[in-house]
Amino acid sequence: MEERTRSRLNAIKNRMKTTKTQLVALGPGAHMQWVLGFHPHPDERPCLLLIGETKEAFLMPSLNAEDTSQRSTITCHKWSDDEGPVRALISALDDVGTRQASHIVIDETMRADFAMLLVDQIPSASRSFTENTVGFLRMRKDDLDYRSLKENAAIADQAMQRGFAEIKPGLSELEIVARIQDEFKSQKADTKFAIVGSGSNGALPHHKPGSRALEMGDPIVIDIGGQKGEYCSDITRVAVFGKPSDEFKKIHSIVNDAVMSALAVARPGIQAREIDQAARRVISNAGYGDYFVHRTGHGLGIEVHEPPYITATSETVMETGMVFSIEPGIYLPGKFGIRLEEIVILRDNGPEILSTLTRDIKRI
Amino acid sequence: MEERTRSRLNAIKNRMKTTKTQLVALGPGAHMQWVLGFHPHPDERPCLLLIGETKEAFLMPSLNAEDTSQRSTITCHKWSDDEGPVRALISALDDVGTRQASHIVIDETMRADFAMLLVDQIPSASRSFTENTVGFLRMRKDDLDYRSLKENAAIADQAMQRGFAEIKPGLSELEIVARIQDEFKSQKADTKFAIVGSGSNGALPHHKPGSRALEMGDPIVIDIGGQKGEYCSDITRVAVFGKPSDEFKKIHSIVNDAVMSALAVARPGIQAREIDQAARRVISNAGYGDYFVHRTGHGLGIEVHEPPYITATSETVMETGMVFSIEPGIYLPGKFGIRLEEIVILRDNGPEILSTLTRDIKRI
Repeated sequence: MEERTRSRLNAIKNRMKTTKTQLVALGPGAHMQWVLGFHPHPDERPCLLLIGETKEAFLMPSLNAEDTSQRSTITCHKWSDDEGPVRALISALDDVGTRQASHIVIDETMRADFAMLLVDQIPSASRSFTENTVGFLRMRKDDLDYRSLKENAAIADQAMQRGFAEIKPGLSELEIVARIQDEFKSQKADTKFAIVGSGSNGALPHHKPGSRALEMGDPIVIDIGGQKGEYCSDITRVAVFGKPSDEFKKIHSIVNDAVMSALAVARPGIQAREIDQAARRVISNAGYGDYFVHRTGHGLGIEVHEPPYITATSETVMETGMVFSIEPGIYLPGKFGIRLEEIVILRDNGPEILSTLTRDIKRI
Repeated sequence: MEERTRSRLNAIKNRMKTTKTQLVALGPGAHMQWVLGFHPHPDERPCLLLIGETKEAFLMPSLNAEDTSQRSTITCHKWSDDEGPVRALISALDDVGTRQASHIVIDETMRADFAMLLVDQIPSASRSFTENTVGFLRMRKDDLDYRSLKENAAIADQAMQRGFAEIKPGLSELEIVARIQDEFKSQKADTKFAIVGSGSNGALPHHKPGSRALEMGDPIVIDIGGQKGEYCSDITRVAVFGKPSDEFKKIHSIVNDAVMSALAVARPGIQAREIDQAARRVISNAGYGDYFVHRTGHGLGIEVHEPPYITATSETVMETGMVFSIEPGIYLPGKFGIRLEEIVILRDNGPEILSTLTRDIKRI
């Protein structure tokens, strides 16, 4: 077993003691990736990493057992497509000594049928998700994590500049997306997502880029993320094709003030909601509170969205090493939207921004 | 509402009557895509389509409500990041009249936390997954579905031939994957997955392609799928770089016989397990039963894996219009693996194969 995996499993077991948890069950997704450095092929076949108080075991579809055994020494309790997973699950729970667990933690991202399969075997256990175990640990990034996140941020900066450079009249949103994907690829990164919202499409925070062609005067929101190695990037900037309107400049200035206000309060020891409130206050005071329709930010790491979430109600205490977005926005339906997003790592004395790009309106 | 969506919602409601179900809850994935022709952006924010006996409603994160309203007339019960989803969920359940449902159907692919959120609101209801409602309906493809699947199969055939054409000594598995991706892209299809397993890696059914470079004598398994429009493709063939060994030729012949045996029995009215048994019998009789470590096939449509599953125990009755894979394999750990996969649509008189490629060993 790799040293990093061993140390992460130990950290989980310590958290299990603190939280009186006898079993942590992870599906083949980001949590498992964080612990093991890989995860078996995810499909409809139930596959779980079961972490007990002293040992671990896999519930494993037979066809992936050989592959998994080449990567990990953790015992596989195999099941075939013919037999189904119940017998192997019981055997795995016995192996890690958790058939009678009183409190279990379930990976909130696993498929509903995986979760129900497990719950049906331990129906009397109370349940929670990973926020106090694996999620808690994943929020704290170490230097190795930071270096990868910083490299990814630099690649995303390049991809953003490529997107800006390619903007031409008549080009569609999807064509700009394709150029951004090319740039990520040329930097040996995968594109995790790419939102290009032109004109009033920018007012839809999760706009799906389409065939709309750019016109003179269009505002353009670009929100992109990639992944090279284990970690991700995420950045949002805005451009205007031509001369920005006075209203656009005013809203941009408010959103940028909201970013700076959040950056100014972010310190170890405060609660996440204080960061959200700092950004939200600026936008509300300017009269646009109803048009800031989402939280101020989210954690970033192996996943583009992960804890900590920076919401108006989160009491999560911020700590040195946490990496998260600050991305307030104002969305005026039918007109335009502006979101400005920085990824920061929290240092002892405040946030360090990973991107080196200005948040100014990019004029094309 | 589009005609196709209306007719699919009606079909679901008829199945709900038959199965005494008061609520079907779908997450932002393939089931919802099948019903609506789209799904809202999926992330960690609970988002559900709730289908009651007479009406539907969305549980919808605020930030995606505007976008969704532009695509659908179904009422959005919105919740903000600050407030959380519980109040909106209760309001949506009231709207569709299912707060007191006695039996609910949950999309088995939705996130565990979405499912638990719902179950906690209707704790006394019995639950099942979609196999008798949406899953049941999705198995039956119509002519429109067929045309898209046939087009996708032709694209996958091209991508497979491109993969074969690019094989050169020294080239890595990942480089072959990249050429296959290029081919899908040039045909305006997305690559859904691409397994290239060279040498003994072919013995791992879900091998993750890596940097291993091809050598003279290598067997190569290529299992790929793409998606153009709403539907997918999936095909597996094998090649040998140089002269195939006698053992390789023998195993190939057994696997091909297993495919033909399954094709020969596949008829409307039989159970899925009879198809599996026809393939498995050939392999077991040849002495390799222990090395056929998975089911014979799976349905194909909006997803690469969907019902019907062709397993040794499935009592699903096959019907005209079902589309599924026949893909027996023999995996000899440390040596090589052979899987041959056809996608077929079941016609009144038997299966029609969608690919036009031979299953012969491709010699490079």
